[in-house]
Order: sequence, then C-alpha cells, then structure tokens
Amino acid sequence: MGGNTFGTIFTVTTFGESHGPAAGCVVDGCPAGLPLSREDIGRELRRRRPGGGAAGTSRNEPDEPEILSGVFEGATLGTPIAIMIRNTSHHSADYDDLRGLYRPGHADWTWEAKYGRRDHRGGGRSSGRETLGRVAAGAVARAFLASRGISLRAWTSSIAGIDIPGPEEPGFDPGAIDEDPFRLPRRDYTEKVRERIEALKKEGDSAGGIAGCMVRGLTPGLGEPVFGKLEARIAEAMLSIGAAKGVEFGAGFAAAGLRGSDNNDRPLPAAPGNNTAGGDLPPGVPDLNFASNRAGGVLGGLSTGAPLEFRVAFKPVPSISKQQLTVDRGGAVRELAVRGRHDICIVPRAVPVVEAMAALVIADLLLLHRSARI
Amino acid sequence: MGGNTFGTIFTVTTFGESHGPAAGCVVDGCPAGLPLSREDIGRELRRRRPGGGAAGTSRNEPDEPEILSGVFEGATLGTPIAIMIRNTSHHSADYDDLRGLYRPGHADWTWEAKYGRRDHRGGGRSSGRETLGRVAAGAVARAFLASRGISLRAWTSSIAGIDIPGPEEPGFDPGAIDEDPFRLPRRDYTEKVRERIEALKKEGDSAGGIAGCMVRGLTPGLGEPVFGKLEARIAEAMLSIGAAKGVEFGAGFAAAGLRGSDNNDRPLPAAPGNNTAGGDLPPGVPDLNFASNRAGGVLGGLSTGAPLEFRVAFKPVPSISKQQLTVDRGGAVRELAVRGRHDICIVPRAVPVVEAMAALVIADLLLLHRSARI
Amino acid sequence: MGGNTFGTIFTVTTFGESHGPAAGCVVDGCPAGLPLSREDIGRELRRRRPGGGAAGTSRNEPDEPEILSGVFEGATLGTPIAIMIRNTSHHSADYDDLRGLYRPGHADWTWEAKYGRRDHRGGGRSSGRETLGRVAAGAVARAFLASRGISLRAWTSSIAGIDIPGPEEPGFDPGAIDEDPFRLPRRDYTEKVRERIEALKKEGDSAGGIAGCMVRGLTPGLGEPVFGKLEARIAEAMLSIGAAKGVEFGAGFAAAGLRGSDNNDRPLPAAPGNNTAGGDLPPGVPDLNFASNRAGGVLGGLSTGAPLEFRVAFKPVPSISKQQLTVDRGGAVRELAVRGRHDICIVPRAVPVVEAMAALVIADLLLLHRSARI
Amino acid sequence: MGGNTFGTIFTVTTFGESHGPAAGCVVDGCPAGLPLSREDIGRELRRRRPGGGAAGTSRNEPDEPEILSGVFEGATLGTPIAIMIRNTSHHSADYDDLRGLYRPGHADWTWEAKYGRRDHRGGGRSSGRETLGRVAAGAVARAFLASRGISLRAWTSSIAGIDIPGPEEPGFDPGAIDEDPFRLPRRDYTEKVRERIEALKKEGDSAGGIAGCMVRGLTPGLGEPVFGKLEARIAEAMLSIGAAKGVEFGAGFAAAGLRGSDNNDRPLPAAPGNNTAGGDLPPGVPDLNFASNRAGGVLGGLSTGAPLEFRVAFKPVPSISKQQLTVDRGGAVRELAVRGRHDICIVPRAVPVVEAMAALVIADLLLLHRSARI
Repeated sequence: MGGNTFGTIFTVTTFGESHGPAAGCVVDGCPAGLPLSREDIGRELRRRRPGGGAAGTSRNEPDEPEILSGVFEGATLGTPIAIMIRNTSHHSADYDDLRGLYRPGHADWTWEAKYGRRDHRGGGRSSGRETLGRVAAGAVARAFLASRGISLRAWTSSIAGIDIPGPEEPGFDPGAIDEDPFRLPRRDYTEKVRERIEALKKEGDSAGGIAGCMVRGLTPGLGEPVFGKLEARIAEAMLSIGAAKGVEFGAGFAAAGLRGSDNNDRPLPAAPGNNTAGGDLPPGVPDLNFASNRAGGVLGGLSTGAPLEFRVAFKPVPSISKQQLTVDRGGAVRELAVRGRHDICIVPRAVPVVEAMAALVIADLLLLHRSARI
Repeated sequence: MGGNTFGTIFTVTTFGESHGPAAGCVVDGCPAGLPLSREDIGRELRRRRPGGGAAGTSRNEPDEPEILSGVFEGATLGTPIAIMIRNTSHHSADYDDLRGLYRPGHADWTWEAKYGRRDHRGGGRSSGRETLGRVAAGAVARAFLASRGISLRAWTSSIAGIDIPGPEEPGFDPGAIDEDPFRLPRRDYTEKVRERIEALKKEGDSAGGIAGCMVRGLTPGLGEPVFGKLEARIAEAMLSIGAAKGVEFGAGFAAAGLRGSDNNDRPLPAAPGNNTAGGDLPPGVPDLNFASNRAGGVLGGLSTGAPLEFRVAFKPVPSISKQQLTVDRGGAVRELAVRGRHDICIVPRAVPVVEAMAALVIADLLLLHRSARI
Repeated sequence: MGGNTFGTIFTVTTFGESHGPAAGCVVDGCPAGLPLSREDIGRELRRRRPGGGAAGTSRNEPDEPEILSGVFEGATLGTPIAIMIRNTSHHSADYDDLRGLYRPGHADWTWEAKYGRRDHRGGGRSSGRETLGRVAAGAVARAFLASRGISLRAWTSSIAGIDIPGPEEPGFDPGAIDEDPFRLPRRDYTEKVRERIEALKKEGDSAGGIAGCMVRGLTPGLGEPVFGKLEARIAEAMLSIGAAKGVEFGAGFAAAGLRGSDNNDRPLPAAPGNNTAGGDLPPGVPDLNFASNRAGGVLGGLSTGAPLEFRVAFKPVPSISKQQLTVDRGGAVRELAVRGRHDICIVPRAVPVVEAMAALVIADLLLLHRSARI
Repeated sequence: MGGNTFGTIFTVTTFGESHGPAAGCVVDGCPAGLPLSREDIGRELRRRRPGGGAAGTSRNEPDEPEILSGVFEGATLGTPIAIMIRNTSHHSADYDDLRGLYRPGHADWTWEAKYGRRDHRGGGRSSGRETLGRVAAGAVARAFLASRGISLRAWTSSIAGIDIPGPEEPGFDPGAIDEDPFRLPRRDYTEKVRERIEALKKEGDSAGGIAGCMVRGLTPGLGEPVFGKLEARIAEAMLSIGAAKGVEFGAGFAAAGLRGSDNNDRPLPAAPGNNTAGGDLPPGVPDLNFASNRAGGVLGGLSTGAPLEFRVAFKPVPSISKQQLTVDRGGAVRELAVRGRHDICIVPRAVPVVEAMAALVIADLLLLHRSARI
C-alpha cells in the first residue's frame, strides 16, 4: 500500500503539495449512515489554522473544504469520501531563492536523494499543508467516534521549555484549549509562554514542544495484537507527523525507572454504574477498573477501558531567520536566513493533527474489533 | 492485513502461543539468491535467550529453528520462508492457578475482553516467546541488510534506574554487548547493575529500562512519505514489542526543549571518500554529511545517511513475587504473588528483538525504495 | 485496504458518484520523473466517451480532468497524483421516479441491502462514471508502461452476437479501433454491427459482448506467485468492472477441451534479434520464444514474454426501454420501462477501461518485480 | 503484501515447496470461539488426494496436518492458526534429469526468468502440493462459514471434452461428488469419463476440464465495491490456482450473446418463509428473490442472496509422456518425455481447492461486511 494511505479498513489517502492546486484526502471504509456535513470538516480545519498567538505564521488561507463524493442527503453512503481544499495563497516567488538550496533541518535534500526532484515551493509535499488532508479525514473519523461515545482531546503540554501541568493536576481546563492561542489547557500559563515565544521571535529563533493527548470511551480490548497493538498504531500515526521525534504512553520513559510494584495498576471490580464499556464485553468476562493509569490505558497492546494517554515530542521549527550555514545543489557551502512566514513552535498547530491521527487509528481499530469474535 | 503480519513487500507473519506446539514465522517477499542457513537463524535466537545474568529467567529451551520452506541449496528461492521452533519446556501446570486470575500489568483481562477466551498458560500469545518468530524473521532481514552494507546494533542504555553512557561517550564498546549478561555496551557498569538487579530479586520486585539502537549504512532517502516515514515505521515496530511504552529518535524528547538554532544539524559537503551512499544518489544530487546528528539520521521521514539512532522505553516486568491485589474472573478481589520463572528486567532480552524489528522495517523500506524513481 | 483502492505499490483509489460533485482518483506509488501532462489524461478520458456509434448514450460531458497534485514542471514528483473530473451534466430529476424502485439487473437493491441507503441518481457509485477515475489512473500507468516499452490494446471482439475475427486472422487492424464507433478492429464489420444495434434500439432492448485485449513487451517472469499471479491480478481487475461476467486467458475455456499435446506451447531458443526482454533476464538464464501462444503469455502465473492475451465477457446493459416487472422499496410489484439515455452495449465504452485496469495491474507488478532478486 | 498472502482481514499465507520439508499455512484474522479440530483440517486434505480414479497420480502421502498454534481446548483463540503438513514421499532423484530442462507448459523457465533459480524437484513452489496450505486454510474458513449457515459445493462440470449436465438439469446429485473418482455430480457419466481418461493415458496424453461451484446462504450485499466486488475477489482467487485459465459467473460468456430482456433476472417479493437472509437486511429494505439466476448471484459486485454460481476452466496437465521438444538451460533444443507420476486431468483434484479458495474469499468478505453500516 502506498506511503500516502493509512489504515486497514477505515483508510485515508492524502494528497497535495503546499503550492500545488489543492490538498485533500479520500476517506474509504467509513460506514454508511453517519451524519456528516461540510461544516463538520470546516470546523476542524479552522482549528489547525494559525491562532492569534505569536507562535503561528501569518499565512491565513480560508481553507474551505469541498466534499466531492461519499455524502448524500447529509449522511455517508459507504463510498469513498473525497475532500478537497484549494490552495489560494500562493507566494511561490518567495521560494525562488530556495530552489537550489538545502535548508538545515528540512527534508529538502533527503527528498531529492530519494526522488531526484521536488516541488521546492513552500516545502512541497513535506509542508505543513499536507496535514489539511489528515485533519479533514480526522473530522470524519471523529464523527464516527462520537457516534460511539468516544472523545479525543489534545493540548500543548510543553512549549519552548515551559512544562504545563497535566490533567492529573488541579487547574487543567480542557475547555480552555481551543481558545488559547498556544492550545494550553490552563489560562495561567498563557502570558509566560507568549513572552518566551516573542523573545525567540526577536532572536530569529524557534522552539520545540510536546503535545499531550487523551482519548476517553474506548471499549476494552481495542487493538490488534501483535503488530497492530493500540500503542503501535498510535506511535506509527504520531511519528508520521512532520517534526515529531518521540512518543510515549502513560508513564512512558519514566516507567523505565520504576519498579514493577510501583508501575502495575491495581485492577478493581468495576464500580456499579461505572461500566461504560460493559455492553461490549463477552459473556462471562467481568468489567474492571484500575486504581491508577500508569499504563496509559493499554495492556498487552489492547485498551483497558481507562483513558488512552500519550505524549508526542516535536522538534523546534527548523526555519529560523538567524543566519545558518548550509550546502547548495552544486555542493557549495552557502549562508541562509530563512525569510517569510514561519511558525516559532509547531505544537499549537500540531494539536488538531495529533487528534486527527488518533481518531483515524481508533476508527480503524473499532472496525477491526468487530471481527474479534464469532 | 491481519494483526500478525508486518510489512508491505518484505513481510513477516508470526505465530505461536507460549505453551502451544510451536512458535515461528513466515517471511514473504525476501528476494531470491540470498545465502541463508539454519545457523543464521539459530545464532540470533540464541542471543534472545536468558544470559548468565540475574536479569533473565531460568527457562532455558534450546530453541532450535527448523526452516520448512523457501531455502534451497543454501540460498533463498524468493518463496515464503517458514521457520518453526518447537516449544519443549512445558510446565503448564505451573499456570493452573492463574487460569481464572487477572495478573496486574499483564494482558490477561484485556485479551479476554477482546476475544472472550485466552490460552492462560505462560501468557499464551502475549508471552515473550512470541518474539521467537520476530527474531527468526529478523535474522533473514539482517542477512539481506548485510548484503547491502547495513549493520544494526542495540544495547541496554538504562536498566533499573542506572543510565549507561551512550555511543557519544568514550568507553562505549559495541563488542562488549553480546558478552555482557545485561547487554551493556561497557564492562565497567556490569557489577553495579548486577547488584541492583540482585537487590530487586530479593525484594521480589522488578525493573524497567531503555534500549538504544543504531543502524549504519542506510542509503539517503530511505522511507516512504508521508505515512511510511522511517520514524513512523520504526515507532510502529518498536511499540509492537510487549512492554514497550515509548520511543524517541535522535535528540527525541529533549529536542522539545531546544531552540531551532541548536537543534538543526549543519549540512556539509560530503568529505571525499566519505560518500558511502553516493552510488545510490540520483544524478545531479550532491552527497552531504552533517556536522551533528540530533535528527537521529532522519529528516522529513527520510534517512539522511547518518546513523539512525533511537531509544525504546520498557516498563518494569509486571510479574513480581511481591504480594499484589487483583480481581478474578468472578469479579472478586484476590491476592497474588507470581511464582515461577520470570525476568527482573526485560531489556537485555528485548535487545535482539529491537534489532530484529528494526531490520524488518529497513528491509521492507529498502525494497519499497526501489520504486522511488523511473 | 478499502474496497476502492487497487494495487500494492502502484495504487489507485477512485471516488465519485454519478451525480455528485466530481469523480476522480488518487494514484499513489508512481515513480518520480515520469513526464505527465493533463493532456495525457484527457486523451484517455475522451476515448471512453460515447463515440458516433449508436451503441453509446448521448450523455456528453466534456470530462476535463484537473491534476490537483503530484505533477510539477511536467513530471511526476513521486507524491500522490490526485485527478478530479467535475460532473457537469446533471439531469437528476430524470431519476426521481427510480428512487424507490429496484431496476432489474442493476445494483439498486444489493446496494441498499449492504449500506441501507444509496445515491439513486444515475446509479450513484455503481454508475459507469465511476470508471472515469480508473481511466484517468490508467493513463498514468500507461505513461509509465510506455517508458518501459510496454503497449496495450483492447477492442470489441464480440458484440450483440456478432463475433469479430481476432488478431490471428488476416484483416485485424489495431489502427482502426479508436476510429470505429464500436471499437471494432476491422472496418468490414462496422455496418453489420450498426444494423444489429439499431434494431435492438428500436425494440427497446440491449446487447452483451466481449472485449479482447493484448499487452506486448512484458518482461519474462512478471507476476507474483502464488496469489499475485499475472492472471489472478488481471482477473480481479477485469471482474471489478461493472457488467463483466467472465474472463479467460489464451485458449481459455476452449483449453478445457484440448489435450496436453495440443495445448502446450513449444519453447524455442530465442531468435537472434528477437530478444526484447533479454536485458532483464538473470545471468545464466537463456531467452526463449514459443512456437504458439495458447498460454496467453502466462505460465505458472508469470509472464512468458509472449503477448498477454485475454478476453472479458460483458452482460447486456440491464437498462432497457422494454417494459419489465420489478419490485419497489415497499415490496410491491411494479412495472418499469427505463427512460433516458443509456447504452445498447457497454463493450465499446468498456474497451478503454479494460486497458486502464490492465495497465494498472502491470504497473504494479513491474514495481513488485524489482524485488524478485537480491 | 507479499504474493503468498491472500485476504484483508481473514487472511491466509501459504508456504512450502513440493520436495521441501513441509507445506502449510498461517490463517490470521479468524474470529475467536470457532470450534476447530485437527480432524476438520484432515478431512478436507483427504478430499484433495488422488481418488481411486485413473485421473489422479499415484503419489499417495498421508498428508496429516499438525495445528501449531491458534487453537486451544477445541476452539480458535483469535490468534494465528499455523498448520503444517510434512512432505514424506520424496523421490527427488526422479527429477534430476529435469534440473536443466524447461518442461513445456510448466513454470520452469518463467520461474527462473523471475528469480534466477528454482527448486526443480517436483515443480518446487509451483507444484500442486502448494494447494495443501490453501485447502487447510479453506477448512478453517469453511468451519466459519458453516457457523453462519453458508455451504459450498464444487464439482467436475467438464472433463476431457465431456460436458456434465449442471445443477439445473435433473439427475444432478451433490451427494455423489465426493464418492466419484472424477468428482462428477452424477453417477451415469463415470464410466464414459473413465474410458476417455484411460484412452488418454494409453496415448501418453492429458486433458483439461471445467469445475463448477455453487455457494448457498450468502447474505445479500456481500462484496466490497468497487475493487472488492464479489466476482473480482472470486476471480482473483480462482485464477491464482495453477492451470486455471478462465472463470465465469452465472450465464458468463454466454451472457455476451444475450439481450437485456433475456438476461435480466426478474426481482420478486420474497416468498414468506423464504427469507434466509432477512435478519441481516437494514431497516426499511425489503427482502427480494429472483425468478432466475443468470446473474450467478451477483449484481453490482454484491451478493443477491441467490446462490453464487461460477465455473473455472483448467488447461490440460502439461506433463505428458508423449515425446515433446523443448529447450534446456544452455539454450539447446532437447527431446522430453515426462516420466513418473502425474495426473491426466487436474480438475478432480482442483475441486476441493476451488471450494477452499471460495471459502477464504467469502470468510474475508463476511468480516469486511460487518463494517458496512454504522
């Protein structure tokens, strides 16, 4: 299966270069009968646009999606759902001087090493605009998950060296995320982050960060052992996002330093009325809860029914206006200061992409899960 | 594709439960003409067996592989290579009292929640013996990679809270790894680790750790954007290993706290004679080197030709002899102290599995890479 | 992989309902560096439009393709090639009375039985317009095959009960096919066919037929045993075309009545200068020719280097203006005479679809073939 | 996915060369909880062994299957089911003189043209023994289908030029098939066929034939448009069987000569008590029957609920004891008379393979069908 298709049953194929005619996706395998509108897609696309925060670029395209197929009279048909977003804000000439130059930290040279050519304008296929197709497809997956009682929430959990307290701390406010320009889950950090980002901007530099994500309402047993483990599929999805350099689940890397007696989550008989997933359990299998969630909601690659929790590390944006040394297509050393629009930190814009990819993984695993038992 | 098959062209399907008749794999898509012997497989299988160290279990099966197909007169035929390893050391009765009990930190309950049943003996399919098939398949992949000048090396980089200095530090000795009972890359840490592990054993507890891995000799451009990025495929492979809870590439999570000007690796014109990958570059594309490798050998999901470097976090072994509370199949609270053989830390035995999975990913990407250009 | 994606490396995903906004495809896995223009696509799309013959409908949309991605400065980038064709000729109201009615011989009821709903206008997804995406993708595959010296030619070999002499007979003229309204390979049958088709039209009836196809220039050994045999892949591709009911290779069903001594094609040492495929043969393997081609160019599922020859049977167009009895959504018996535009025989319009699907299969197998040997 | 794996969810991977250590398969994706025993597999394997008829070879291995994994306490676990059959009857020396010779009508040369080498003993991977893995896997699929009320039956419908009247004629007796040495569905043809086969044997020649197949109990709507149409998947499966050269559904090639008014099957309101599939129909969709079945049980690539009917053409066995001319590895013309055991006509032994492949397709489509609607 080509490198631009993701999933086994609920699949997405994305297409589009940054300065080509359009970006978009084809979602195949979405069950019929799901209510879906253009606005469902548009809403998610707007979430990935630069917010009011200084972290984002000023490229500000309307990004209006058009549903080309697969939806009829307000619901999915079971046929492929093609969604297209025109590229309208073309400043291709901005990129002319980058044509023969390999930007540090970018895919310019590796892309040429593979394909012998590239669309150099705005990063071409390795531009952040590629995520438009992911987010559009994620909106479809999300609608499907919502119909099954599953919700997803991602946020900025670290940015420019500032760690934001997580959901286990008081003051974590999921409702704040979408309104905050940095996608922070608490309002008392916004100013501090803004100052740090502004300072970096002045210095012509950039920052990395971490996105957190939590998924609630998963049926126990979700995942396809052994290679389709829930963590394996999420990890694949997350590391397919540009600039992602790591992922961890639950206690994650910290678990490497724990003892078994500290790390094991104690199973508990499910409290009455607490049995969100009970209806899906096979006969004779009791419902359980867990006294803690260091497992991040996964045991043996299968959902425990507790929230799926993971974190994704993103490297600093490689485009900086500070002077850098690099090499050109002729093999000569060159100086470079990247001009034009670019983000200081990608995490705020990656937040909806993290959610979209997680939604796609889970939609696919939900459909596969239907085949687990006779 | 089923949850037990991995790869697109160079694929592996593994099979086997811990106490069933056999474990093994079918490797499909391996090119014809590769010299391969039973000993090539056996050598790798022996590396995953418990070493002399206290970290491993005392289960000590010979694990002799049998090649059932795909090899003729000492070389691969291009047909499926089936490899079987008999399970000979059956102490199934040891597990009778675990039949109706959900062990904390294990997949017992999630497995039943999915399939309605499980082979409870020794963890069944979610046992570490499942990795026999992976390591056998990895041995085939490894032979293919060796024919292309690619080498892989994994090691224990953190165990029981003790961090081992990495390859960038003096004293790192790849030759020490296989001889060290904990798969440490330097002999001066062995005693310290042994003491820590022995102490945990006395306390009836266990430990987590981290495996490091480095792959050398990759052709620039390896990887399939956008969903088949080198990091995405490796991340999927690593998180498919039982007990793995995180993965990071190059600077990884630490990159999240860096600035762009610090994190970007400066491209350099390739030094004469340094051009290992030159033959594979398309016409007109110069060969590059990099002044540092915070990218871990990947830009835009494609290999830079620098070593691929990543780390995998493993949680502590959940089987501990300390008393724990859990729930049984009837939904009642029960006490449990896991008896019998179990590892204190899984990382030393995971080291060859990490290598095997990485080899499988790279073998598959190498074959896909052949289709990049006309 | 979803039901709307075809192929393993060189893949196509099609989308679109007959009266939705657009039809199209995404081609993924096409190697970089292939010259490709909008006109390459448009030319093939025009070939599937109704000719001047009475066999076709009068629906006459311009079917102008737009390349949305994957092509830059006249050549493929190695990224997904998305192609869109707007649906412009909407007479949706024509179909209002068919909304609750199941047309005999159509997919109306089976579609509802599967999905619970359908876009009833013009057949929705099961319309012939779905083949626009196939033909557009086939144009890309065809360009790739042309760069490898492979050519494809399909034609009408039987229509409305009239059998047209095949390529082994004198008078077969490949150059005539595209100019003939019925896609006949010889001009001396056109009038006879026209009369038969006109008579059927007057009677309000329709006809079936057979398409022949020949592919030249295949490298010996093409195909992926055992499930990806050349014939298996072609058969799958052909039976995925609406109205196709059978496929045969070489002597085909007639071979069932032959003896081995009659059916075996005698191998011959390749004549000097006849060795089209020689460059691709492994060292030590001689080039062969065959004294006949009852095998249709395939032995053991692998190309022999002789022309691949196959025939595809198509059932009569089920939409006829003659009165028929059927059932409506309420389960009641109803009379129906299908009004509006429809073909008398689908074969002339299926000819370029047969070629497109064959081109897609072969492009994919060519890329897979690159992995056959070390 | 490699050429030796078939299916999307319910998948099979086969392995094994004719004279290697073993043949077999891994079935992945079979739902948990299906009762399955070694005898279920053994029974099907015995059906593919040479019967008492003169059509078969005298190679008579016991073909005892061993289930290596995936079954516990008499039922499937949801894990991969590996099945192995040892090759015990080795007369490898019989094949020494064929080592450098390309047998007419066989895959000897095409295989070398692809892979550069082959296991020449008994056809290696392209031997009929490869179907052992298919039939073993088909037995698993068949058990799954039986649990859903689906039954399959194949038979010899034409052999050595003798056409056997089909199921629409009086005297067709499904119960006779397994007892008849030629797998004929009526006892009054056995002697005639035997005489014809004996005569061919004396002449040192062989025969082709046709297998018919009927599948009952399919839920309406089964199939995955557009590329996963029921006919497309069956066609792919059938043409993946060695020696198959054609497939047709329902009226098949004969439909090409019919008119629409003759070929359309009239839909009827389902007779009370006739509604085998009713429980699976979506709300508001009435159950239908059809007055005839020229469609072979498929409309628009989806099951109509009527029996799926298809026919598969097989070429004459290419191994004949008559003298033939061919070419050797040195490129020289050579005489050949194939000695040793070989079938006169393959169809009787192909009958259970046709059933097995059909069972595998339908098991997979049944699981995919679960995702059709919300």
